[in-house]
Order: sequence, then structure tokens, then C-alpha cells
Amino acid sequence: MTYCVGIAVNQGLVMISDSRTNAGVDHVSTYPKMWSFGQPGLRQYILCSAGNLATTQAVVSKLQRDLDHSTENLFAYEHADEAAAYVGRLGVAQQKNFNGAAFASSFLLAGQAANEPPQLFLIYPEGNYIGPTEYAPFLQIGEAKYGKPILDRVITPDTPLDRAALCGLISMDATTKSNLTVGPPIDMAVYQADSLQPPRLLRFEADSAYLNELRKTWNSAMLDILEGLPGLP
Amino acid sequence: MTYCVGIAVNQGLVMISDSRTNAGVDHVSTYPKMWSFGQPGLRQYILCSAGNLATTQAVVSKLQRDLDHSTENLFAYEHADEAAAYVGRLGVAQQKNFNGAAFASSFLLAGQAANEPPQLFLIYPEGNYIGPTEYAPFLQIGEAKYGKPILDRVITPDTPLDRAALCGLISMDATTKSNLTVGPPIDMAVYQADSLQPPRLLRFEADSAYLNELRKTWNSAMLDILEGLPGLP
Repeated sequence: MTYCVGIAVNQGLVMISDSRTNAGVDHVSTYPKMWSFGQPGLRQYILCSAGNLATTQAVVSKLQRDLDHSTENLFAYEHADEAAAYVGRLGVAQQKNFNGAAFASSFLLAGQAANEPPQLFLIYPEGNYIGPTEYAPFLQIGEAKYGKPILDRVITPDTPLDRAALCGLISMDATTKSNLTVGPPIDMAVYQADSLQPPRLLRFEADSAYLNELRKTWNSAMLDILEGLPGLP
Repeated sequence: MTYCVGIAVNQGLVMISDSRTNAGVDHVSTYPKMWSFGQPGLRQYILCSAGNLATTQAVVSKLQRDLDHSTENLFAYEHADEAAAYVGRLGVAQQKNFNGAAFASSFLLAGQAANEPPQLFLIYPEGNYIGPTEYAPFLQIGEAKYGKPILDRVITPDTPLDRAALCGLISMDATTKSNLTVGPPIDMAVYQADSLQPPRLLRFEADSAYLNELRKTWNSAMLDILEGLPGLP
């Protein structure tokens, strides 16, 4: 399985993905699921994937090949939603190349094209896509349930970018702790709104001292809050 | 859907259940899913259910009828695991009464029989059952994913009973906030180990001032913790 979350706050965009891939419990491997593409000053995109590994690999290969050799490519569109539609078409085309029902992949595409605000899309296996709402300015793919409550409680459009990034990491940490099919390394991209410069990219390995410190601090803070809650009536 | 959680700490047992029942989004109703049965000084049991409503209603009716009229009943067993096996048999029998594949129900049974420690069981639709592990001394049925991370982070056998109860409420609150098929009233039972007296029963309605205060305190504490976390490397 997989867990990816994209967060769109006023200050910018955050994308976080895990790297565990499994086909049954005896076929587990590590594949990063985040890619960054951009032309400084013109457009920046971050792509995350969940679902069938063959499909996502083929989509990313085709996307890169189109950038190198085709006029229909990720950078050919003036608007970010056209880029999302393009990724959707690549996904649908790859699934049609093969026989079988379970080759579906979903994508998150976060980014900004010049003269537009930053945007975030969830692209379905069928190729259509949605953006987030201001009431819940985030989108998730894969094992989304474990990490949803913290996002529901915390994230609003006004959340500062760094705090949104930390909140996303906690959401990912909750998921890796509660579900074995989601695991490190954890990739993170933090994009500053209107910079049109490549995002800040961070990778947290399983033994990341930072991630361990974050988890320890968070867990002990949880216990402190519980102590401070109003007692049962 | 449904969410129920049972927690077994050294000081006692906590059970929490929601009351929303739905068959599609246009057929939503309110049915409590917790029942308490006991003989003071001899045995105390708390039962929670998830799954097919007809099956759970029939099981609880049969259980009550057996208590009134049969020698094979919940109070007839010396050991709590025999009581769990009995509930499992009732569930299997009810499912066999009808044609169809989707009448399954799961149960949580928490309680204590004299001369035994308190115990907690998850009873599967097939009638077999498991207890929790000391590494994660809780069991969940229904929409379990949203509320699992907080339990994974906090609950150990040494967690004080009242704190375990609060943690369970937060786990339930996270679930009701993130999933519309889980909703109030929220029922809670808190059983003091070795008391063999009826559990403390609490019901929190949708407009519960206490639950609203708990949620507000929790949410604002989340924001405070995020402020205090070590910044991104």
C-alpha cells in the first residue's frame, strides 16, 4: 500500500509520500513515490502516486520521455489543471496497454504555473481530477484514514507552511506506526507560493534522528494533553 | 458503519461505541450498540457490536431471552472466554437463519468473572475470538483506522483507567470527525478491575457540552504542540 498527502495552504504547498511497496506480505520493497518537475520562473510541479507500481512507473517514464521528446508534455500547458488532465490521460493510457482489472493508479499533483495561484489535484485512475476545498485544504491517496484526523483538526488555509509540513509529517508518522504497508523513507516537498522555484526536498530514512525526535516529542505531548483534559463528568 | 473500541488496562476496562447505523447514505438511523449484563459479585460483561443490524439485534434478544429462560446463558459460564464463545455461537446461529452473504456481525466483549482477571475479546462473525496483546491492549471493530494512531501512541497496560477512557473518547471523536458513518450519541462504559460491580455508564449526545469542551481543548492543544515541535531540518 501507500500513503501520500498533499496540503495547499495560502503560503504554499506540501507533499509527503512514503516508499513502501508490497504485493502481498512476502513481496515488500522500497520505491519512492514522489517526483519533482519544473522550469524556474515558469512552472513547478510535484507528483505523487499510489496504486499499481507498473502503471505509476510507466506514467512517470512517459511523462519524462514526453518532456524530452514531445511537444505534448507537462510543461506545454499554461494552466495547472491542464497538466493534471495530461497526467490523467497518461494513467488511463497505461492501464489500457494491459489486460486486467487491477492496474489502477491515483496521483496527487501539486504545483504552480506562472500567473496562477498554487494548486493541488487528486487525479483518479479514470483520468478525471479534483481540487481540495478551503474547509479541508488537503488531499490524500492510499491508506488515508489513519492520518486524516490530525489534518482535519489542524489544517486550514491560514496554517503557516512550516506548520502544515510538520502536521503532514505527523499524519504520515501515525500511518506508518499503525499500518505496516506504509513505511520509510519518507519524502517531503515544500513549495513556497509564487516562488516558481523548485520545492525544498527532504528525505527521512527509517533511522532519521529528526523523525525519531519528532515522534518522541509528539507522543509525550499527547500524554501531557491527556493529563490536562477535563475529567469525565 | 460503526466504531467501537475496547481497552484493557491493569486498572480495568473501557468500552466506547457510537450509535450511527446506515444502509446507504439515505437510510441513516440511531441505534446504540452497547449493552451491559452482570451479577454483582459474580460477573460483569459489556457487549458492543458492529455489522449487520438484524444480526446484532437478534443476538442481543436471544442473549437476553436465554438469561430469562435458558440454562445456557451468559451467566452460566465460570470463565469469560466461555462467555465469548457463547456470544460467538449466537452470532453464527443468527447468520445461518437467513439467506445471504452479508449478515456478518462482530462483537467486543469486555468483562470479568469471579476468580479471573478482567478480560477483553473481539468475537469474529465466524464465532471465534481473540484477546488483545500487552503491546497494544485494545481491540477495535468497525471503522477502526481513524482512531487507531492515538491508541497506538498512548495506551499501555499501565495507563490509568481514567486516562484510557479519555484516550478512547479522543479516538472516537477523531473517527466521528473524519467519517460521517460514525456518529453520536457516544456510549461509554468504565469498569473498575476486580469490583465485579456494574460499570460506570456514560452517554454523550451530539450537543454534549463535555464532549465539545474535550474536542476544543484537544484541538487547541494539537496546535500548541505543533508550534513546539523541532523545526524541519
